[in-house]
Amino acid sequence: MSQPDPRPDRAPAPGFLAAPPGALVPPRRRPPTEHEHESPDAWGFRDTYFRINERGHAVLEGNRYELSGQELTEFLPWMRRSFGVPLEPAAARPSRYPPAVPEPRHNPAFRAELEKFLPAAAICEDPLARLRRGHGHTLTELYSIRYGRLARVPDLVLFPRDEAEVERIVQAARAHGACLIPYGGGTNVSEALRCPPEEQRLIACVDLRELDQLLWLDPHNRMACIQAGAVGRHIAAQLRELGFTLGHEPDSLEHSTLGGWIATHASGMKKNRYGNIEDIVLDAEVVTAGGRLARAQALPRESTGLAPGRWIFGSEGNLGIVTRAVLRVSPLPELQQYDSALFPDFASGVEFLRELAHAGAAPASVRLLDNLQFQFGQALRTPRAGLAALRGRAERAFVTRVRGFSLEQMCACTFVFEGSRDQVRAQRRTAARLLRRHGGLRAGAENGRRGYQLTFSIAYIRDFALELGLLAESFETSIAWSQVVPLCTAVKARLAREHAARGLPGRPLVSCRVTQVYATGACVYFYFAFAGHGVEQPHEVYAELERAGRDEVLRAGGALSHHHGVGKLRQRFLPRILSPAALEWTAALKRGVDPDNVFGAGNLWRP
Amino acid sequence: MSQPDPRPDRAPAPGFLAAPPGALVPPRRRPPTEHEHESPDAWGFRDTYFRINERGHAVLEGNRYELSGQELTEFLPWMRRSFGVPLEPAAARPSRYPPAVPEPRHNPAFRAELEKFLPAAAICEDPLARLRRGHGHTLTELYSIRYGRLARVPDLVLFPRDEAEVERIVQAARAHGACLIPYGGGTNVSEALRCPPEEQRLIACVDLRELDQLLWLDPHNRMACIQAGAVGRHIAAQLRELGFTLGHEPDSLEHSTLGGWIATHASGMKKNRYGNIEDIVLDAEVVTAGGRLARAQALPRESTGLAPGRWIFGSEGNLGIVTRAVLRVSPLPELQQYDSALFPDFASGVEFLRELAHAGAAPASVRLLDNLQFQFGQALRTPRAGLAALRGRAERAFVTRVRGFSLEQMCACTFVFEGSRDQVRAQRRTAARLLRRHGGLRAGAENGRRGYQLTFSIAYIRDFALELGLLAESFETSIAWSQVVPLCTAVKARLAREHAARGLPGRPLVSCRVTQVYATGACVYFYFAFAGHGVEQPHEVYAELERAGRDEVLRAGGALSHHHGVGKLRQRFLPRILSPAALEWTAALKRGVDPDNVFGAGNLWRP
Repeated sequence: MSQPDPRPDRAPAPGFLAAPPGALVPPRRRPPTEHEHESPDAWGFRDTYFRINERGHAVLEGNRYELSGQELTEFLPWMRRSFGVPLEPAAARPSRYPPAVPEPRHNPAFRAELEKFLPAAAICEDPLARLRRGHGHTLTELYSIRYGRLARVPDLVLFPRDEAEVERIVQAARAHGACLIPYGGGTNVSEALRCPPEEQRLIACVDLRELDQLLWLDPHNRMACIQAGAVGRHIAAQLRELGFTLGHEPDSLEHSTLGGWIATHASGMKKNRYGNIEDIVLDAEVVTAGGRLARAQALPRESTGLAPGRWIFGSEGNLGIVTRAVLRVSPLPELQQYDSALFPDFASGVEFLRELAHAGAAPASVRLLDNLQFQFGQALRTPRAGLAALRGRAERAFVTRVRGFSLEQMCACTFVFEGSRDQVRAQRRTAARLLRRHGGLRAGAENGRRGYQLTFSIAYIRDFALELGLLAESFETSIAWSQVVPLCTAVKARLAREHAARGLPGRPLVSCRVTQVYATGACVYFYFAFAGHGVEQPHEVYAELERAGRDEVLRAGGALSHHHGVGKLRQRFLPRILSPAALEWTAALKRGVDPDNVFGAGNLWRP
Repeated sequence: MSQPDPRPDRAPAPGFLAAPPGALVPPRRRPPTEHEHESPDAWGFRDTYFRINERGHAVLEGNRYELSGQELTEFLPWMRRSFGVPLEPAAARPSRYPPAVPEPRHNPAFRAELEKFLPAAAICEDPLARLRRGHGHTLTELYSIRYGRLARVPDLVLFPRDEAEVERIVQAARAHGACLIPYGGGTNVSEALRCPPEEQRLIACVDLRELDQLLWLDPHNRMACIQAGAVGRHIAAQLRELGFTLGHEPDSLEHSTLGGWIATHASGMKKNRYGNIEDIVLDAEVVTAGGRLARAQALPRESTGLAPGRWIFGSEGNLGIVTRAVLRVSPLPELQQYDSALFPDFASGVEFLRELAHAGAAPASVRLLDNLQFQFGQALRTPRAGLAALRGRAERAFVTRVRGFSLEQMCACTFVFEGSRDQVRAQRRTAARLLRRHGGLRAGAENGRRGYQLTFSIAYIRDFALELGLLAESFETSIAWSQVVPLCTAVKARLAREHAARGLPGRPLVSCRVTQVYATGACVYFYFAFAGHGVEQPHEVYAELERAGRDEVLRAGGALSHHHGVGKLRQRFLPRILSPAALEWTAALKRGVDPDNVFGAGNLWRP
């Protein structure tokens, strides 16, 4: 046997995902403009929000989306009928934002250390800046900043300009007993940013917004190196100019960041073609309490033992700060086509999706909406005039009279086909064949396009509804195909029972959609809403009901989450999905790599 | 804000990847027959081996493969010309197996504990059984058991019959200070099974051969639950009878096990269609020093924080024993077609592969052989007679005279197309289009089929060559597309230099093939051989040269390994690919989850 060489074969310490020969280094992206400012107390851009106009109709302000500026005459009437409550504009409860913000704690030694390398503008104690970084976008968090308060928010917000500054911040925190919470887009819906109220140390939020550059693009090898603070819409725009795309399109694309995608193990709407975040990221660089996790270069695929760089997926800020990653890029597709279909009922649509996933030619995106969501989409239609209205009525008559679909049962499916001409043709042919087999009916490209694009504007409805006294949120899971329909039935029934048992006003709305398909199962999204009029602390009632819904998901055999993550919202459920030894492994890793709990966000498992 | 519920929502402890409703539970597989016995001192089945017949020609004994029983008249002459050494059958050096086997160490308390729950037949001290479990299939290991000895082998071999017995073995080892090394197929080429000579404790090999059942198959959800000791060929045969396949076909398929695939982060030849092992495994159950890593059910995809079940990929026996996994299965493809092509040179073939990977319609398998491997394949041809020989000559004339290919430059590519009729058509059309663009020439289905199937028989050549005094082994990497050709050039040049610098006899052979393609790069295999005649300790010289080759791979920007893993063979190189913090993370996990080093195989990083 050969004896091991006593002197390990050392080379200079690995570099930091350096650009391969031939890579492009694009010019620095310009900083965000006024146009890009976000609302502090609601989802999305400041220039975009729903309001009720002088004729009593809902309107989406601004001009970003197709829906923007349209008078939605059907929307409020549909909501009133569905919830069985009046929803009077006069009774609306405007946001009382901002709430009182807790005074910051101080750690003079930490601050003195920071001032050695950070300019004054990069160390921020502004109350609203601190407030914003103490929450994500759960209903409870939004309710709290509008009508209540947050018990604890970061004491300091830091804006490092490069990886070296991130490293020095971490070293300073470790040396001087501060707690760090990384911040990307602030879009999580898991209470991952909620500061642990019991934390006695100064909490510094490390906001990565300055680390937002596309560092290099290698078209030959289809890789790009991007900093973790880069926002999805900027990444998409910059790559598009260069002829490429990541293909990663979470619903939060406009506001979430690369680092957030990695930390939450994200999934995008086009994952069938491009993969989930773990398929797209080749390697990530992470600043940890013990130094940088770094690699000389990113590689297509490896078997080199334990891969700590990949443990950062799903780490939710608990293990370190992702600073950059090398990702696989894809050229912009030759063709992009939308389409849509109707199914007589949800179960037919689910079987269609299963066979589509199994046929191995799934469109980039395919989503199935249950009847309630289909109706909801109809209620968001703008009034048609002339021929268009006639055609709408004619179509409806065909679907219901000729094909015998029930307006109370039918479901809608939207498609985005992407790829080469041949690939799109093959995807369409497969979809058409399976559509026939499952009694589906094509409903046109325009409905498909509209349905897909609606994703970005309907995200604004939840916070508008809150002003009208409605409490709403979504939660999601993944589950084996055979359990999809039983799961949906069980969750709807459970939430209806819980709603009735509490004597809450009106009727609850529970709706679902299938958003991602796999050979083995699917991702299912639930939307749950109820009227909170006259209910004490309605957001706490909501949280209770959501927990009941989650309990039902787990009973039915679903995942704790498909892509939202655990945060603090779902951590209580971890012992139901992981054995004690598995929980202990996660705790052991945390103790081992961050013994001082520098990254004290307190998400995931806390024994 | 909602307050965390002080009483976590606990349910009964998760079960063990239970069968979903509707899953099939197939009958128990019958035990292996005599026909399946493996050679103790060479690759593969006992009934299959190369020898030189009475006419001085190489023959593959047995009847398992196409090559079996054929008189290979061209093979030895080609080898003599290539290595520039005589390779006289009379000078062959037959295996001196078995070597002296070290006496076993004893641990009476551990043994007494084992005897409480294991039958006598499941506790084995037989020297040859212990010897076999102390090595894999590296050249150095084979040389050592044939012509030298192993310094340390397991002191005991255990054959648990179920997961509960594995758990009790681990508890006993922890309680009584024994060291455990899991064993699957024993096919690794990383010295992962070599017992650390400094280990003072009793070393027990935990052989999983009794945990070899397909526990359930769920055709609707395309999942199967399989025990970790199941051997690839048995899994494939049993699933085939039920109409399914894993699609995971490593070169070692006939002998390696599911548990080994997971522990080494394996990759199969058909990964383009079916994915690598991490894409196929939904969830694994692992017996660890702290209990079972277990889940109630396997799910399509999750975001539930840290995922310890996935840290076991690439753990190489250091963290626990995989006992079962739920895997994604695929129906047998409607169509399977072979094909092959010739390219004027290697660089054209590499560009063809890159564009094929980028076109998104890659065949299930596509492999590119450099000129030397192409010649090697020609030398393994059986003599043609009559028309066939004429056709062979005619083809050769066409390729070289009409198309101007040089016999010393041209390369071969083999294809396996799988899928639906439409998918195979699309794959073939794409391949044909790109073939034209890169000056390739179709070389027929028969050559493609033969090339793919040859994989299993050429695995026997290395150990035959050893008897003739040739030292040979393969090593592999993954690398970005732009670096593939520079890498191959650099490694060939370096090994030629190292060979010359040592004044070794004859000429070295260095050859390469591209075996797996990704959007971002490829897996490259090197085959390196030299004549060891008259060389002192030639296996140690080989190890030195292989290290030089690996150094060159890392300099060129390649991975330490694409799918073979680290073991003890490559652990010295880890500091060149992982930063100190990353190495410390792996060490911290090991300390945290196996504080007594129960799983003391000593692979991966040892600080």
